[in-house]
Amino acid sequence: MARFAYVNGRFERHGDASVHIEDRGYQFADGVYEVVTIFGGDFVDEVGHLARLKRSLGELRIPMPFTEAVLKLVMRELVRRNGVRDGYLYMQITRGVAPRDFKFPKSARSAIVMTTRRQIFTSAMPGDAGVRVISVPDIRWVRRDIKSVGLLAQVLAKQAAADAGAFEAWMVDADGFVTEGSSSNAWIVTRDGVLVTRQADSSILHGITGNSLEKLAGEAGIRVERRPFTLAEAYEAREAFVSSATTFCLSVTEIDGKPVANGHPGELSRSLRRHYFDYGRTRQDRPFSWPK
Amino acid sequence: MARFAYVNGRFERHGDASVHIEDRGYQFADGVYEVVTIFGGDFVDEVGHLARLKRSLGELRIPMPFTEAVLKLVMRELVRRNGVRDGYLYMQITRGVAPRDFKFPKSARSAIVMTTRRQIFTSAMPGDAGVRVISVPDIRWVRRDIKSVGLLAQVLAKQAAADAGAFEAWMVDADGFVTEGSSSNAWIVTRDGVLVTRQADSSILHGITGNSLEKLAGEAGIRVERRPFTLAEAYEAREAFVSSATTFCLSVTEIDGKPVANGHPGELSRSLRRHYFDYGRTRQDRPFSWPK
Repeated sequence: MARFAYVNGRFERHGDASVHIEDRGYQFADGVYEVVTIFGGDFVDEVGHLARLKRSLGELRIPMPFTEAVLKLVMRELVRRNGVRDGYLYMQITRGVAPRDFKFPKSARSAIVMTTRRQIFTSAMPGDAGVRVISVPDIRWVRRDIKSVGLLAQVLAKQAAADAGAFEAWMVDADGFVTEGSSSNAWIVTRDGVLVTRQADSSILHGITGNSLEKLAGEAGIRVERRPFTLAEAYEAREAFVSSATTFCLSVTEIDGKPVANGHPGELSRSLRRHYFDYGRTRQDRPFSWPK
Repeated sequence: MARFAYVNGRFERHGDASVHIEDRGYQFADGVYEVVTIFGGDFVDEVGHLARLKRSLGELRIPMPFTEAVLKLVMRELVRRNGVRDGYLYMQITRGVAPRDFKFPKSARSAIVMTTRRQIFTSAMPGDAGVRVISVPDIRWVRRDIKSVGLLAQVLAKQAAADAGAFEAWMVDADGFVTEGSSSNAWIVTRDGVLVTRQADSSILHGITGNSLEKLAGEAGIRVERRPFTLAEAYEAREAFVSSATTFCLSVTEIDGKPVANGHPGELSRSLRRHYFDYGRTRQDRPFSWPK
């Protein structure tokens, strides 16, 4: 079956879908993106993802290519054409095509690209096992709260993980605190059973899936602390896990070669994954607000 | 006259030239670039630019799309087809097209794009006047020595300059030292007549034009110090200027609204510009070595 991509107003065959060589996304990483989970043919946390998209665009003064209502229609039409029940939608918006010049062009129109991919999600931990992470220095720019396509540092971090046989790299700031993973947020569970993940300031990307996990945990009466944690604290944690739109919640069973607790997926992360799966399946999508 | 671009093995009309939406340059800023001045139909400092290109690619483990000999042939053919006597060539090499995944794809082929643009160069300071710069915090990633297309921070800096009616933004590190401009290296001349520009470590891009200016200055018996300088030192400087492949050497006559010395282009920067113009015209291209 043909797989379509949406590119600047047209649904095109994925293999033929292209952008001009002077799209500023290509020459300057001058654009942002979102990845939205598709579950049972519908979007999970769409409100949150679109709110973050608009925030990223606003911070960069890139206009939305069209209204949010049209955007949502296009998202749905692409999912329909591609017949995706479970998987995710990737969306990228750039400042558009203009003769190469660093400063904003006077007359470019925002460019937009969307693709989908199929993926099967399970409520159990995939393979019933957790993943390994390594730590690397966080060498990214200062504005990590903007979900820009300037992802080269994250690419290098993820490749460092792959080279070490790990799934993810946790990036560590100059003060020794974990910021987040290369494409996921980082969490630990302390020996007292408290969930800890970094506060949503400019040092990390504000995770939409993470926010939902935080709500679900709160509703279950689990205490969540938004604060930085060190690698040393992570090594001693009762559990550790990562969260993202494509991984949901994935137990970390080894950090830098050291097993987390007994080296098996923890109870809390397994439970959170099941809760998030149910949440996604029932398409709960409540109004979204940024953490204060 | 039709203007051509070179894209992955083909010379295409510039308006039609495109890359696939899953080129990693578009989705991850996973690529590097060079801008080479064309002067009298030939390249200026080609050896230095190609050495830096190979270094950038090597740091990212991106293979050259083909041999350097072929690269040089393609560069010349594009300049010939576009009939460019004076201007510059833009070249971008990315890790290629692959299904979106942060880590390096196993089988992608490096993608390459080249364009040219005409520009008239003059040995005199353009308009016989200098340019204004403002200062902004340097918010870029740590590996500024890699000439990657991840240029969003530089785009924002250049736009901040444009918003303030200035030509360039000088980026300032956490310790108060100027690193460089958003698309140029930053220089001052002290009251003792010493040329000062930052040492070529990972805090700045290693300027090819800047290196040539340094050599030309050295040959003229002018002392050059490679060290950081503060904004305060720049405000008190006898002269200031920027260097890049497209600007050569351009006097800075105002920094953050304060005139540099008497607010007119300085003698040394005017002289260096003339020397670089002669150097470019005579196509001197000596073997290149990185500063120790």
